[in-house]
Amino acid sequence: MKDIYIADLSAFEDGKLFDGFFLVLGKQHRTTKQNKPYLNLVLGDKTGQIESRVWDPGDPRIAREFERGDLVKVRGCIQRFDDRMQLKVDQLRRAQTGEADKMDMLPATARDVGELWRELEKSVASLTNPHLKTLLEALLGDAAIARAYREAPAARQLHHAWLGGLLEHVVSLLGLAERVAAHYPMLDRDLLISGVVLHDIGKIRELEWEMGFDYTVEGVLLGHIQMGVDLVEKTITSLPGFPDRLCTLVLHMILSHHGKLEFGSPKLPMIPEALVLNFLDDLDAKMQAAAIEFERCAREGRAADELTGKVWALDQRQLLNTKAWLKESGK
Amino acid sequence: MKDIYIADLSAFEDGKLFDGFFLVLGKQHRTTKQNKPYLNLVLGDKTGQIESRVWDPGDPRIAREFERGDLVKVRGCIQRFDDRMQLKVDQLRRAQTGEADKMDMLPATARDVGELWRELEKSVASLTNPHLKTLLEALLGDAAIARAYREAPAARQLHHAWLGGLLEHVVSLLGLAERVAAHYPMLDRDLLISGVVLHDIGKIRELEWEMGFDYTVEGVLLGHIQMGVDLVEKTITSLPGFPDRLCTLVLHMILSHHGKLEFGSPKLPMIPEALVLNFLDDLDAKMQAAAIEFERCAREGRAADELTGKVWALDQRQLLNTKAWLKESGK
Amino acid sequence: MKDIYIADLSAFEDGKLFDGFFLVLGKQHRTTKQNKPYLNLVLGDKTGQIESRVWDPGDPRIAREFERGDLVKVRGCIQRFDDRMQLKVDQLRRAQTGEADKMDMLPATARDVGELWRELEKSVASLTNPHLKTLLEALLGDAAIARAYREAPAARQLHHAWLGGLLEHVVSLLGLAERVAAHYPMLDRDLLISGVVLHDIGKIRELEWEMGFDYTVEGVLLGHIQMGVDLVEKTITSLPGFPDRLCTLVLHMILSHHGKLEFGSPKLPMIPEALVLNFLDDLDAKMQAAAIEFERCAREGRAADELTGKVWALDQRQLLNTKAWLKESGK
Amino acid sequence: MKDIYIADLSAFEDGKLFDGFFLVLGKQHRTTKQNKPYLNLVLGDKTGQIESRVWDPGDPRIAREFERGDLVKVRGCIQRFDDRMQLKVDQLRRAQTGEADKMDMLPATARDVGELWRELEKSVASLTNPHLKTLLEALLGDAAIARAYREAPAARQLHHAWLGGLLEHVVSLLGLAERVAAHYPMLDRDLLISGVVLHDIGKIRELEWEMGFDYTVEGVLLGHIQMGVDLVEKTITSLPGFPDRLCTLVLHMILSHHGKLEFGSPKLPMIPEALVLNFLDDLDAKMQAAAIEFERCAREGRAADELTGKVWALDQRQLLNTKAWLKESGK
Amino acid sequence: MKDIYIADLSAFEDGKLFDGFFLVLGKQHRTTKQNKPYLNLVLGDKTGQIESRVWDPGDPRIAREFERGDLVKVRGCIQRFDDRMQLKVDQLRRAQTGEADKMDMLPATARDVGELWRELEKSVASLTNPHLKTLLEALLGDAAIARAYREAPAARQLHHAWLGGLLEHVVSLLGLAERVAAHYPMLDRDLLISGVVLHDIGKIRELEWEMGFDYTVEGVLLGHIQMGVDLVEKTITSLPGFPDRLCTLVLHMILSHHGKLEFGSPKLPMIPEALVLNFLDDLDAKMQAAAIEFERCAREGRAADELTGKVWALDQRQLLNTKAWLKESGK
Amino acid sequence: MKDIYIADLSAFEDGKLFDGFFLVLGKQHRTTKQNKPYLNLVLGDKTGQIESRVWDPGDPRIAREFERGDLVKVRGCIQRFDDRMQLKVDQLRRAQTGEADKMDMLPATARDVGELWRELEKSVASLTNPHLKTLLEALLGDAAIARAYREAPAARQLHHAWLGGLLEHVVSLLGLAERVAAHYPMLDRDLLISGVVLHDIGKIRELEWEMGFDYTVEGVLLGHIQMGVDLVEKTITSLPGFPDRLCTLVLHMILSHHGKLEFGSPKLPMIPEALVLNFLDDLDAKMQAAAIEFERCAREGRAADELTGKVWALDQRQLLNTKAWLKESGK
Repeated sequence: MKDIYIADLSAFEDGKLFDGFFLVLGKQHRTTKQNKPYLNLVLGDKTGQIESRVWDPGDPRIAREFERGDLVKVRGCIQRFDDRMQLKVDQLRRAQTGEADKMDMLPATARDVGELWRELEKSVASLTNPHLKTLLEALLGDAAIARAYREAPAARQLHHAWLGGLLEHVVSLLGLAERVAAHYPMLDRDLLISGVVLHDIGKIRELEWEMGFDYTVEGVLLGHIQMGVDLVEKTITSLPGFPDRLCTLVLHMILSHHGKLEFGSPKLPMIPEALVLNFLDDLDAKMQAAAIEFERCAREGRAADELTGKVWALDQRQLLNTKAWLKESGK
Repeated sequence: MKDIYIADLSAFEDGKLFDGFFLVLGKQHRTTKQNKPYLNLVLGDKTGQIESRVWDPGDPRIAREFERGDLVKVRGCIQRFDDRMQLKVDQLRRAQTGEADKMDMLPATARDVGELWRELEKSVASLTNPHLKTLLEALLGDAAIARAYREAPAARQLHHAWLGGLLEHVVSLLGLAERVAAHYPMLDRDLLISGVVLHDIGKIRELEWEMGFDYTVEGVLLGHIQMGVDLVEKTITSLPGFPDRLCTLVLHMILSHHGKLEFGSPKLPMIPEALVLNFLDDLDAKMQAAAIEFERCAREGRAADELTGKVWALDQRQLLNTKAWLKESGK
Repeated sequence: MKDIYIADLSAFEDGKLFDGFFLVLGKQHRTTKQNKPYLNLVLGDKTGQIESRVWDPGDPRIAREFERGDLVKVRGCIQRFDDRMQLKVDQLRRAQTGEADKMDMLPATARDVGELWRELEKSVASLTNPHLKTLLEALLGDAAIARAYREAPAARQLHHAWLGGLLEHVVSLLGLAERVAAHYPMLDRDLLISGVVLHDIGKIRELEWEMGFDYTVEGVLLGHIQMGVDLVEKTITSLPGFPDRLCTLVLHMILSHHGKLEFGSPKLPMIPEALVLNFLDDLDAKMQAAAIEFERCAREGRAADELTGKVWALDQRQLLNTKAWLKESGK
Repeated sequence: MKDIYIADLSAFEDGKLFDGFFLVLGKQHRTTKQNKPYLNLVLGDKTGQIESRVWDPGDPRIAREFERGDLVKVRGCIQRFDDRMQLKVDQLRRAQTGEADKMDMLPATARDVGELWRELEKSVASLTNPHLKTLLEALLGDAAIARAYREAPAARQLHHAWLGGLLEHVVSLLGLAERVAAHYPMLDRDLLISGVVLHDIGKIRELEWEMGFDYTVEGVLLGHIQMGVDLVEKTITSLPGFPDRLCTLVLHMILSHHGKLEFGSPKLPMIPEALVLNFLDDLDAKMQAAAIEFERCAREGRAADELTGKVWALDQRQLLNTKAWLKESGK
Repeated sequence: MKDIYIADLSAFEDGKLFDGFFLVLGKQHRTTKQNKPYLNLVLGDKTGQIESRVWDPGDPRIAREFERGDLVKVRGCIQRFDDRMQLKVDQLRRAQTGEADKMDMLPATARDVGELWRELEKSVASLTNPHLKTLLEALLGDAAIARAYREAPAARQLHHAWLGGLLEHVVSLLGLAERVAAHYPMLDRDLLISGVVLHDIGKIRELEWEMGFDYTVEGVLLGHIQMGVDLVEKTITSLPGFPDRLCTLVLHMILSHHGKLEFGSPKLPMIPEALVLNFLDDLDAKMQAAAIEFERCAREGRAADELTGKVWALDQRQLLNTKAWLKESGK
Repeated sequence: MKDIYIADLSAFEDGKLFDGFFLVLGKQHRTTKQNKPYLNLVLGDKTGQIESRVWDPGDPRIAREFERGDLVKVRGCIQRFDDRMQLKVDQLRRAQTGEADKMDMLPATARDVGELWRELEKSVASLTNPHLKTLLEALLGDAAIARAYREAPAARQLHHAWLGGLLEHVVSLLGLAERVAAHYPMLDRDLLISGVVLHDIGKIRELEWEMGFDYTVEGVLLGHIQMGVDLVEKTITSLPGFPDRLCTLVLHMILSHHGKLEFGSPKLPMIPEALVLNFLDDLDAKMQAAAIEFERCAREGRAADELTGKVWALDQRQLLNTKAWLKESGK
């Protein structure tokens, strides 16, 4: 059905008209600095997204009624500004049922979600603390939560911003936490594992991914930390005999996992498990960012002795790919 | 019954033995830098508190079993180090029923709590938004919450650290909020008033004042912001038909009232009412701190052209009492 | 006379020539990165301003002699870069007497300046401290100062950047200060009101608005705080019997009103009145910024559940319009 | 007349009574933590100062009427707390005329003030800009200003906190500025020299040294930067024909000489002369601090390879005395 | 021989004379605030240290010639100031050969140094990169370096401040690094292991532990990062065929291991191995600090629901011992 | 040979083809946001540089094999985006031997390098400390080092970014240091002078200027501070009898010359000479930045009362040219 993808557009000539189906990821009424109204759209599919402009929103060929999250058919052309590309939209209407498939419209994890989910369930099954085990089973056994947990991206943009990203992030962290728990006998391993599974669960409420990835208004006002605490607390309330102190510790793990007040945690980690959760979450995010950047450089054919671009998750630092650099010199 | 108060001790000579009843506000097992164990106590009554030492905890005249929150009878004497005073405890036992009255043991507001409570109820009664009114009535109508709200101090130390302090703080803020709401038509007055009433309600869980003023362990791990949100959210859940958006806004008011991430708010104020609540809470705290400092200086007989001591709530700034200074020069 | 306004230009096609009269708000000799000289102009009228370029300043159709502040007639055309618009100037000469009216050239307050001025005078008349009353009357009774005070914008850009903006800002603050003074008996109300009237008076020297809104060189080197202090101090010197201490306090109000050293106040507020002035000035600026942003969003037709753009005065925070959001859900 | 000096007291035994004449440098009504009133005095003479206590201010042998700045005769004894010493005062009365000499009571520069003054005058005489020369002559020719300039300390404590300290500091800086001006042809040497002479002149108003070294209340509220600007501006106003721009630059030098907003300069240095003044003032302060610290270590007999104590002016850094360390190893 | 240890002194009465042998850990000529010279000593043995004072250094019973690092015999008594204890020294002479044993004088690791060393050697033996293996073998095979590496403390105070502390710290980190390297295939495991072994090697030059634990002057001026880089670089220079790039990476690991410029690393980690080394070094330090604090609390008999004291390595945060707290509630 | 220079291009029309020889200063494989590969080149010669694009790298007229540092012949045309200019490359091949001269390709100091070198040698010759003199002679007598020292730029961009820039910067600083050393007898003048000569010597390794100015990978990972320390240390090792302490001090001067940890110095200045070196290096950089900015303004014909652009080296501050501003008003 869908025959033109965002990824194809770079090969198109400026000004040449084409038709295509896309998802409306953003729609904003704007005015130029000289007060002329226009529509600023973001259109996307699973291969990417493109900024788009409707310069004359009053044109009868532009649908009056369409919103973020709608599938639309557009006619327009590409315009280039140096290395930046824009879609100038001349005609736009909502797609009719059956004309386009929503599955084609959002990026998704390359991993097998079923397999990731089984790894998560294996971790839960390995818990020996009955209360924590029951808590996790109750949450992940809730059909709505489970579906959301499998689908949710880990972020609107930046790290793991794709369908299944949250699950992928948690499973990766579980492996690391397991190893570190084995190194420190002081740690309550079950509490740490539970913290890993639950720390970002509020993102299934903070984010919204039906219509592209974005924050919900509630998510902006409350944040995923508070939303996760709320979800877990309500579930615990429904579990008879869940110890009060254990409840406090689980909530503290979620509240403190950003590690600093200025990163939005209202409490600093004050138990060893919370300390470790914060460290590993941070380390894993940075290692993933490095890996992604190294892949991008390889894809772009950069030389082994060229530094990467500035990595956002590492304070705009540039990195060097150790193995590639050493290997090249060994030739 | 109680015939010796903390406030009297400053007149006592060093080393002279006396007997008295006090509340144990703190009890810590400590060792000197050379590893000799001793007990570090804080004893108090409604007129103040005094650091106390049991240098030989193994002495048979020192009770084995007593804890923070117990009423005790001690025999000991005063020791002075420059302007600092300490109580050296030679004998200590738990008070027997009827020997001492707990009401004598903690400082309390000088205001009439009943009257403060009526002012609070008047504000609630004035709300026109039925949902907010019902919410506040439900919370303040809960006997346990109402009792705690009337008793709780506003802090462990620093501002309003006395029984009834929370209520006193809220009532003062209500008056200010009312005036400012009248100045800005943009504001939803009922939401602002509700935010004032609820912003610190978590302190009835974060703090504990039966045994002196201290944080509960849960309070330290979760904080009054989270505890307040939890309390309000659970109450709202029990109210049929409470609008979701209004719930989000109320919770946002509580979450954001510290105004900065680094002050422990996980979210910044993002609606006008939250912005105003944060400003007024901050302003009122500073004005109270100034007023208290001016009173202290007057009590100490300082000259009008002497600056105050460093005020903690104002970043250790010193202040000048405008009216006193101008008046003096006018003589 | 003037028949083409900046606000009209957005409807013009690219490249189509037109003639118009504008005020030269900025004129800079620049070179491209490759060292070719050009003129970078800012042309404006009361409906807005537009960046303009003279790519060939040596062209005989471009006047040699014209400066910032001159009225000019230009012939040129619009060029667009995405949502940005520029005026390419082909011909330019100074307007002849009578060809254009300076009143058409700068934005001005929508309020009635005479009425604002009467509100200010009413506040002054209400003072009971004779020295402060005399001081304010002397300043506002000076014809040159009064004219400047009525005309001055409150800023070069950002808040209240229009003719009459300073007066509008002060009158708004007077209302708020009056209410807060009534809440705190500790405050010297007359000193606070005087502080409100005088805190920004240096802006009539720091800014210059004959030729568009800009800082004077003296303003850049000394700042409106110092310039205001100087103006007030010289006036006080001319008033026999003005008390020394009162003079010190008035100057301290001006010096400290930015509230922090890093915001350019050389002294922190050290009296209650200065503390309150700083808080209210800050709060009012933020509330105005919110109001303006909400208006812009309404004008642009944004949905009630869309957050505003990033608000500069609130550290780039986005806001939600409480009333609109609640109202929408109530439908 | 005065036969016991502060410097002698360290040899006195604890508890042995003695009589002596001192200047009251500080007098504060205090209460112990248990609310017993006492007097906290600082007594001093030119060899140092000592904290003193009147534990029973109601004792008839303690004068009712005496203030900071009075010469008093006290009877008391030394009390030691580890390496800290305190004077316990049993009797105190104001000295009678002729009993004690104020010249004995405050520390003063070791340099010859007349000679320092002549160096300053030589710098002024060397100026070629007639306006700046006239300005400096007018200020230094004012008898009251000149006397204050010769007497004033440069600070209440820390650097150059002794009579004549301001003059000594300025003369030292003149030599350095002269050298640096010769290195940079870009600099207006006369403006730089004038800035050196005037930058701290407000200290003759901010500080008060008749009764020990302290800030005046006006000094605390306005600061020496503002007070210096005011003094210079009023003098310039009295000089016919002084160019406006030159006036602005001179005031800018004073305003900006602390170099950073957070150090209390309301403006950053924006001309080369102001930039250099700030650098040299800072460098010279640090070099003086190092020199004083090296002298103290030598006096205390520290080994050459021992680091100095923490130097306040260098952010609590410890230093090594290069020459001493190298010399020692060369033995 | 040695029959009185520092740890015993807490049981001694104030003022009672005793004789003992100690190591001089610090000796400073000081003067009281009133300029009387005295000696400030720190005396220690393997059980602790005590601040000591010679109030009359001129007394003939006090040896003229003795320095930091000498064994001395002193006669004196204990003086207490609240919970602080001081040794007042009346007599002091250098110990004669055979009177005291230096092994009794410094704290040492509780682990078996030989065993720790074998673990280190096992890690080195496991390397597969021949150059890195040769480098580590060359360094650890140098008798002087090996002896220092086995003896050195990891710090002057704070973490691992005892003989063998450096080795203990490195071995602990090796275990953690091994686990994390197994989790991230991206990592060059040999480079990471080498970084762990070498990152703090400069401490064998920066610190000095013959005479107590202190920084050398060279250590203060250059730091262990630079000293470690220098040592490793010189060793590499002596190894023919060591690849230049590998050398650069090894040095970069050492240079960047503090992770932030403001922590004294002149370069931020820019390769994955350096990133991980910094994270693990930081995490392990914090976990050790938590463990030590929990032990101290257990030793002091604190209740399970009492928070620990403020932990320096965790920004003065207080911690809760998860396992103890949960266990207690389970009773 | 070379007949078209970068500086000439600004006069070229858009789209008009031309041929020219340039140095490849940068070559990066990039993709547009839509994933189409292109080459991003920086081409330069001694008159400047220009961003260039090869939009179709697969075109047979574009050489496959060419790298940064190669001389190339290109055919292309200019494209303008407002005041920005780009070279669109249609054909590109490596220059053949003799077609172009590398001396034409990089900017160089306007000063006579031979003369600068003689000034440097004069300073070295003036040293009286034989060890320092020998050290400097050894370094500057090394042919490879001397050549690099004469050629190296002082930075990749910003200050002194041209051939000979390092030498020019050092010679300027020598004059300033000489003057300041004469003012402070405390300073070891020879150590200060040596510090000036050596502080940036690592830049001959950190930077690379054969192929344009850039950091080497080693330079990025180690930095010029570490590289300078290494170079100096190795030279000292080869000098018999060089005193250890003097070596430590010289290295400390290099290590600490950035003055703050956050600027990349792993140690703060702890000796007076290091303190002065840091101050003068900083002051001179700022004065040079001001001078360059004033020259640019003069060249652009800006009015004397117009502030400069934002100066990077002065935290984006704008400056006023004192002399020009005063002179203009004097007209």
